[in-house]
Amino acid sequence: MKKHNFYAGPSILSEYTIKNTAAAVENFAGTGLSILEVSHRSKEFVAVSDEARALIKELLDVPAGYEVLFLGGGASLQFCMVPFNLLNKKASYLDTGTWASNAIKEAKFFGNVEVVASSKDSNYSFIPKNFTVSPDSDYFHFTTNNTIFGTEMRYDPEVGCPLVADMSSDIFSRPIDVSKYDVIYAGAQKNLAPAGVTLAIVREGALGNVERPIPTMLDYRTHIKKESMFNTPPVLPIFAALQTLRWYKELGGVAALEKINLEKAAILYDEIDRNKLFKGTAAVEDRSIMNVCFVMNEEYQELEAEFNSFASAAGMVGIKGHRSVGGFRASIYNAMPKSSVEALVATMKEFEKLH
Amino acid sequence: MKKHNFYAGPSILSEYTIKNTAAAVENFAGTGLSILEVSHRSKEFVAVSDEARALIKELLDVPAGYEVLFLGGGASLQFCMVPFNLLNKKASYLDTGTWASNAIKEAKFFGNVEVVASSKDSNYSFIPKNFTVSPDSDYFHFTTNNTIFGTEMRYDPEVGCPLVADMSSDIFSRPIDVSKYDVIYAGAQKNLAPAGVTLAIVREGALGNVERPIPTMLDYRTHIKKESMFNTPPVLPIFAALQTLRWYKELGGVAALEKINLEKAAILYDEIDRNKLFKGTAAVEDRSIMNVCFVMNEEYQELEAEFNSFASAAGMVGIKGHRSVGGFRASIYNAMPKSSVEALVATMKEFEKLH
Repeated sequence: MKKHNFYAGPSILSEYTIKNTAAAVENFAGTGLSILEVSHRSKEFVAVSDEARALIKELLDVPAGYEVLFLGGGASLQFCMVPFNLLNKKASYLDTGTWASNAIKEAKFFGNVEVVASSKDSNYSFIPKNFTVSPDSDYFHFTTNNTIFGTEMRYDPEVGCPLVADMSSDIFSRPIDVSKYDVIYAGAQKNLAPAGVTLAIVREGALGNVERPIPTMLDYRTHIKKESMFNTPPVLPIFAALQTLRWYKELGGVAALEKINLEKAAILYDEIDRNKLFKGTAAVEDRSIMNVCFVMNEEYQELEAEFNSFASAAGMVGIKGHRSVGGFRASIYNAMPKSSVEALVATMKEFEKLH
Repeated sequence: MKKHNFYAGPSILSEYTIKNTAAAVENFAGTGLSILEVSHRSKEFVAVSDEARALIKELLDVPAGYEVLFLGGGASLQFCMVPFNLLNKKASYLDTGTWASNAIKEAKFFGNVEVVASSKDSNYSFIPKNFTVSPDSDYFHFTTNNTIFGTEMRYDPEVGCPLVADMSSDIFSRPIDVSKYDVIYAGAQKNLAPAGVTLAIVREGALGNVERPIPTMLDYRTHIKKESMFNTPPVLPIFAALQTLRWYKELGGVAALEKINLEKAAILYDEIDRNKLFKGTAAVEDRSIMNVCFVMNEEYQELEAEFNSFASAAGMVGIKGHRSVGGFRASIYNAMPKSSVEALVATMKEFEKLH
């Protein structure tokens, strides 16, 4: 039976990415060797890394003065790398969920941290608005998409200081204005590649302004200088990322992806709002187009486990909600075909008829 | 034509590892999904991670009180994680090559570092002996195998304080006495898995003794507590590692691997010593059984480029030496079949006949 992959991350990748990666595990670029066992300094892999970084610059319209890095350690390592490199006197953070809160915790090791607003008291069901950022902040950090709570900031906020964003779960889902950011980072395992590589886009002019010594591996300048080959990069995840990026370009780039994403999200939210059994958990104006969180309506609470089994039997994988929210979460990243969203909607309708 | 993969890293993996990983990229554990796109919290992947950690404990005879971790960021990140977690007053380091020297550089960010000996003045062609380690050192750090220079310490030194070792390029090549170590770490991309995961074996009792605050991701206790799932681990590299570990067990474990490794290394070193065209670069008593470094003999220097082409044409991949040593380097890790070592020897003999 066809499986519909709604995992929150690691999550669905395009058939194009999977097919080409499978082929490279057998024989990479005609080398007669597997992508699993080729040197990162082989000319064939250097070409992969170069093309991937160039495509990221092209797709996100990255201005001059920025470098694209492939790093190890996950977005969680960026929670400390960002303040290590950028926090001089004070940084401002917006608390919109578990990952934002983890980033705040790490920043506090390094200096004065201003939390400008938080929706924690409402279990992060909305994005705080009307907050003020101190103009003397070194940067304003926010999480564009809150994977666990299904809220998203689909804009580049104007706050009076440079932006730093964790875009792990919605990068490449829409156009962004990179020039407003000092650092953008994203764990690859949602919209780019299998787990194991983290993308960072760093403004070189933002570096070198802190007094503290920075361990070599945690200094963005190390990786900029060596074009992400200071140490051995995660070869296979970068190869897979290149496949995804080529597919994005073929589809028409991030503006085209945004159009498709809005359409897919609307199909699913419309059903959640219409179906008597379900309701959404995130504030309507802040709904994520990547992670759609919903629960059973009050009077149908007892059907939760049954719907989970019913949907599993219909081929839906990974729709159980995170324990912080409960209920269900359908992650509908870039690679999720509209047909899978429609299949989930059909399953919801069918389940409604039974009750 | 059959390729013989002598890359220093990322490097050859067993056919068993490659075949099973290729199959899992198509369909992982019967889930109908690719290993590239399954949640690290799926029961199928949790089983992979658990089995891999258990097999490491079994193969290396890891005593109670130690935890096995899969981390991101490469062995180079361990260069700062080790002193972050363990360096209280003073640490002692042995300088045997580029990576040892990089580890020393990072430790200096954290405290007093005693370099007990160095072979740098001899371009790291031997392992210093007869050095003394201060008994009040928090730990003694050394690199068991120097990938670039082809030297190796195939023993667990007795120095009067706990050991910490970078075993990136020879872990699983022989039995070790883990009980002498506080931390053993190894980038996976030589004897374990494709690039993207780092193995760490950590004695829990060695942690919590430093005053400094440790960022969450750099604190070994974070990863111990969450069984390497504090954040998303590199799923595919860990899956591939499990395949390698199963293959090692099937072959008879690390004692059996050591026997084969000694035999393969002897075949190649014997030819280097016999063949009039070549000579080894490492001190004979310190020769690595993983990375065999050799250059043209003085009177045949001008043949270097020609031998490189000749060997390439015979299917030898990755034998160009590191720029720090020049000449040639044949990396003959655990997964390298004896037949490939014999093929290289045959090529050397054939080339000798031409001159």
